[in-house]
Amino acid sequence: MNKKQLIEQIKIKKSFLCVGLDPVLENIPKHLLKYDNPVLEFNKQIIDATQDLCVAYKPNTAFYEAMGRKGWETLTKTWAHIPKGTFAIADAKRGDIGNTSAMYADAFFSEEKSGMSFDAITVAPYMGKDSVGPFLNYADKWVILLALTSNAGHSDFQLHETPSGKLYEEVIRISSEWASADQMMYVVGATRGTEFINIRRLAPDHFLLVPGVGAQGGSLADVCKYGMNKECGLLVNSARSIIYASAGEDFAEQARTEALKLQEEMAGILEAAGLV
Amino acid sequence: MNKKQLIEQIKIKKSFLCVGLDPVLENIPKHLLKYDNPVLEFNKQIIDATQDLCVAYKPNTAFYEAMGRKGWETLTKTWAHIPKGTFAIADAKRGDIGNTSAMYADAFFSEEKSGMSFDAITVAPYMGKDSVGPFLNYADKWVILLALTSNAGHSDFQLHETPSGKLYEEVIRISSEWASADQMMYVVGATRGTEFINIRRLAPDHFLLVPGVGAQGGSLADVCKYGMNKECGLLVNSARSIIYASAGEDFAEQARTEALKLQEEMAGILEAAGLV
Repeated sequence: MNKKQLIEQIKIKKSFLCVGLDPVLENIPKHLLKYDNPVLEFNKQIIDATQDLCVAYKPNTAFYEAMGRKGWETLTKTWAHIPKGTFAIADAKRGDIGNTSAMYADAFFSEEKSGMSFDAITVAPYMGKDSVGPFLNYADKWVILLALTSNAGHSDFQLHETPSGKLYEEVIRISSEWASADQMMYVVGATRGTEFINIRRLAPDHFLLVPGVGAQGGSLADVCKYGMNKECGLLVNSARSIIYASAGEDFAEQARTEALKLQEEMAGILEAAGLV
Repeated sequence: MNKKQLIEQIKIKKSFLCVGLDPVLENIPKHLLKYDNPVLEFNKQIIDATQDLCVAYKPNTAFYEAMGRKGWETLTKTWAHIPKGTFAIADAKRGDIGNTSAMYADAFFSEEKSGMSFDAITVAPYMGKDSVGPFLNYADKWVILLALTSNAGHSDFQLHETPSGKLYEEVIRISSEWASADQMMYVVGATRGTEFINIRRLAPDHFLLVPGVGAQGGSLADVCKYGMNKECGLLVNSARSIIYASAGEDFAEQARTEALKLQEEMAGILEAAGLV
């Protein structure tokens, strides 16, 4: 999916919501355990209940790998269930030397080779340009590079001062020379609204993937106040507050209710900004 | 496997060789294509031919994920074929917020949950302490943190100056407070022998995993001259020069020949250092 198509979806759905598909078998409703693959059934029902309210889904690969071979099968089938026209993000935080990153690109972008073709993958920046480049060889596919994450450990290295700014600022400044805003996004944690001002100075045109709204404590209003640009430029992720809205048989309905609250808030913000 | 056991293996085998299991279907000998899972058969024969010459195997997850669901099955079965008493490294370069890194720890360290229990996993440092911590909760399991990698892109961020040293030096200095040399190792690329002097100043007791000897151009003698410590403290990885030593029916035999060359050179170095 290219940038124009993504922006169209945001306008059609009046939403820039991304739903994080991070299921843990122990946490999903008990009545699903009768299915051959309860986690897949959970994901399918969440997707079916929310697909008109969000523009993106983001399975985090860790939650699937923790279930071994069956988990990888579940990831593949979950990808296949994400509706065409919805932006599919593999939250994989990969990155390796060039020829190895090319294998990761095949894994997440080549349906022919791996059975999956996500629109985007999250990538860790530490190994530099040639670890990112192979993902950019796929047309209309995106790298979402870790810039400023929402966890406590973000202060260990990301905020380190360098002669030309904090490390995360350097990551944005340098990597924005590797690809345009048509193929690169940045992960920016939502727990610090005012830092979006700084990030928008460095990356005015890039989409930002914002985790941490909801269970991790960020405020949607703050994120939008400081992070939105003239094309919206935001994908705001929520996982636990949606997918675990209820542990009962009404989990999908309650997930929809939670997603709808966020979508309605987003619609209001988009309208106030004159974007829809 | 704990540090004492690893050092015992190095002394018994007179080797600190790690064999990288990074198979690509297109590159493996054609006569293996008759097997139901040619890549698994390739790995098994490489392991069987080299297991007395190396102390570690290191499958890189990218090469398996690129083959989709079948690839993850191959990774699982490859892990199962690595002999007990040999150090098994998942070269996965993972790292995420704490509760998500805990899922990655399950994926690679919990046989009960995922079907695999490697001895170690490579981890990217960018997300900081809480992205590394969950891996350390497993007794006798190791984090091998990316410090200075062997690819061109290492200069993009790893060599960035900070007020207290280059970024990779900061990664070593700060992370060495998170775990002792009994559970932490560092990835240090072999293409720059003299930088080992500096790294040994920061991490005198840690094992270093050194990729890049062989196809990537590093010199074993240089690595050992500058990087070895009083317990050896090195695992030197070689992948392509061993596993692709021949594309014919003699591939396993030729892989053994290449591994033997390295093992004999290592035995000489260990003897000269008085370590065996």
